[in-house]
Amino acid sequence: MTSIPTIVPIERFTFVKLGLPKESYASESRVAIIPANVTRLLKINLQVLVESGAGSNAGFTDEDYIQAGASIVSRDQLFSDADIITLVNAKDEQLNEIKSKLKPQQIVIGMMDPLAHPEHAQTFAETGATAIALELVPRITRAQSMDILSSMATIAGYKAVLLAAHKAPRLFPMMMTAAGTLKPARAFIMGVGVAGLQACATAKRLGAVVEAYDIRPAAREQIISVGAKPVELDLEAENTETKGGYATEQSDDFLKRQQQAMANVLAQQDIVITTAAIPGRKAPILITKEMVDGMKNGTIIVDLAAETGGNCELTELDKEVVYKGVTILGPSNVPGTAANHASQMYGTNIENLLKLLVSKEGELNLDFEDEIIRDTVVAHKGEVVSTRLRELLGLPALEVTSETSPEAK
Amino acid sequence: MTSIPTIVPIERFTFVKLGLPKESYASESRVAIIPANVTRLLKINLQVLVESGAGSNAGFTDEDYIQAGASIVSRDQLFSDADIITLVNAKDEQLNEIKSKLKPQQIVIGMMDPLAHPEHAQTFAETGATAIALELVPRITRAQSMDILSSMATIAGYKAVLLAAHKAPRLFPMMMTAAGTLKPARAFIMGVGVAGLQACATAKRLGAVVEAYDIRPAAREQIISVGAKPVELDLEAENTETKGGYATEQSDDFLKRQQQAMANVLAQQDIVITTAAIPGRKAPILITKEMVDGMKNGTIIVDLAAETGGNCELTELDKEVVYKGVTILGPSNVPGTAANHASQMYGTNIENLLKLLVSKEGELNLDFEDEIIRDTVVAHKGEVVSTRLRELLGLPALEVTSETSPEAK
Repeated sequence: MTSIPTIVPIERFTFVKLGLPKESYASESRVAIIPANVTRLLKINLQVLVESGAGSNAGFTDEDYIQAGASIVSRDQLFSDADIITLVNAKDEQLNEIKSKLKPQQIVIGMMDPLAHPEHAQTFAETGATAIALELVPRITRAQSMDILSSMATIAGYKAVLLAAHKAPRLFPMMMTAAGTLKPARAFIMGVGVAGLQACATAKRLGAVVEAYDIRPAAREQIISVGAKPVELDLEAENTETKGGYATEQSDDFLKRQQQAMANVLAQQDIVITTAAIPGRKAPILITKEMVDGMKNGTIIVDLAAETGGNCELTELDKEVVYKGVTILGPSNVPGTAANHASQMYGTNIENLLKLLVSKEGELNLDFEDEIIRDTVVAHKGEVVSTRLRELLGLPALEVTSETSPEAK
Repeated sequence: MTSIPTIVPIERFTFVKLGLPKESYASESRVAIIPANVTRLLKINLQVLVESGAGSNAGFTDEDYIQAGASIVSRDQLFSDADIITLVNAKDEQLNEIKSKLKPQQIVIGMMDPLAHPEHAQTFAETGATAIALELVPRITRAQSMDILSSMATIAGYKAVLLAAHKAPRLFPMMMTAAGTLKPARAFIMGVGVAGLQACATAKRLGAVVEAYDIRPAAREQIISVGAKPVELDLEAENTETKGGYATEQSDDFLKRQQQAMANVLAQQDIVITTAAIPGRKAPILITKEMVDGMKNGTIIVDLAAETGGNCELTELDKEVVYKGVTILGPSNVPGTAANHASQMYGTNIENLLKLLVSKEGELNLDFEDEIIRDTVVAHKGEVVSTRLRELLGLPALEVTSETSPEAK
């Protein structure tokens, strides 16, 4: 246990205190822990302190949290008493406030955009607290239940299709009516990771004719498995998948040939969903302005990579761009548009991670021998401890000593 | 043929001229005739004059119309030369302009909201022109292919579900993921005419658990046929369906008992779509404020009857009302949100009606012996000729003479 002063001394020796502040991040509607998590966390000796209103945008009232066994506290009391603070966004506008309130013995868990912003880890290191970046959960089987990128991508892929169908001037399913036959919409999914596969499945459910493309040959069977048709461009690419299951970056020449062949495919579509994002890097341009020129009047593009620059050259973040009859949508925080279910998945991911951090005896246990802990802890005891982030920041490698990888006591 | 002066005298004796003006009605994106109709109409001796830009909001360019065989003309030339003018909205802000331009020999075809606004028929009568209100197409088998209310209701039912799914904080399908199982959304469709059945089918496609209710016992099998579950309220109602297939208005007492039983059903839903509209009447309130009080946080209501007052007491036209965590949407012109497919259906409906109006020899033929013509023509030769509308306007019945039901020559 940490040695934070507290006003509830009896509980200090029986529960680890988990704090759930209200998100102050602009337009964030998700919440990191839902009432169902609270009940289950109590059983593993975690007591949850909730800031009033924390879950309201995701559909969970203070009363829901209280009934599940949480306590409602002020924001100041929460930051003062909690051993672990869990958030959706531990970055940008929310980061400064967190920084000013964190104490060295505390652990903060959230999304920190660590690969694009390794300096966030430095900010946390300055507080002396321990920071866990959920984006760095390794893609290993044991960590699947903690994989926030996968769970949020599931929501994003589904909602991207719903957004497209909502905006589209055509219906998705074929309809044979007294007023003639409506042809089904043609949907094309570019990039078939978790979001892309879910987009394929959702467009298929709605009745569209679905095609999909990914540079990774392994995606072919996955595309077929959700009822879509893989598009073949007769181009060869090598080393298309990283150890962690992400698409690797391709050469400019390959991308150019890919784009030329793609233009013909795009010209036939009613709906296009792009999902090609490389963690920490600018998204690759898959759809150029010239390709949009060749597309049909009324086509809707939903660019799920808008937050990292977009897969379409014309994408503008959070705007609806109309270019020669083609509408390009670049929404941010798509998972947040299904805040209730997204929070359920996020909360379950965090709950599973917390089981690694808290022992059966109700003590904090930060085991750096565990790959998941080692990969996700970005700051600890005043240092940036993540090897990946130290490289990105140009810091020398840390020697592993009892100073930098202790059990947190 | 009519004897309108024209500047293209040779064609006057071979083609009936159909005019397609650009809709000036606020926020109308549909167009009454699409290029595919133009090609087919040419074969039955109809030449189509299109105002520049008429189809642009529905995804059809002037070039598309020209390639299909239409001529692009100015608005003034169109109103001057056309024998028949066809519109989506022949009402409200568009009505005054049409009135000032119409000539006695012309026929205007469009949606006129005749039962709620029988005075529109009087306005047309004052011009001496013939006005055909598409809403009055009888619900007989032969007229199904001209039934604009059914075709637009098909679009509205589909899009209402898409709107709800787009806004909902939860996903529709059940998902079993590494981050836990997401329960499927529960969708409830109130009023199961064409729009309601399409809403059932669409919500089912998307993976929701769908229930539906209609006061007409005949709806039960239709609900089951689209994969939804009929809700039984154990209430008896009589004379629930008119000859024409619409739901009849029920007594206040029946509606009250219905609402009480309904509140329990509504309390379980994530999505509610209401579709109960009675042509020419204010929509019945199916969901009271008290019933919304009992609904779940995060529930989305899409009220397709918003244009006629709404089925929910809290509905405001074209607004997003949030009341105790429940979002109530009352969109207007829902078919217009799928302008391309809606125009295709609308155009096919009009094309089929035009086949009744134009003889094989390319002459206008207004046969008042035909039930479809008799029911839909609301103004002719300076008189309101529709029996239904004369009743609504308090006008004496017309004697059927050769003056009032001639062949238009």
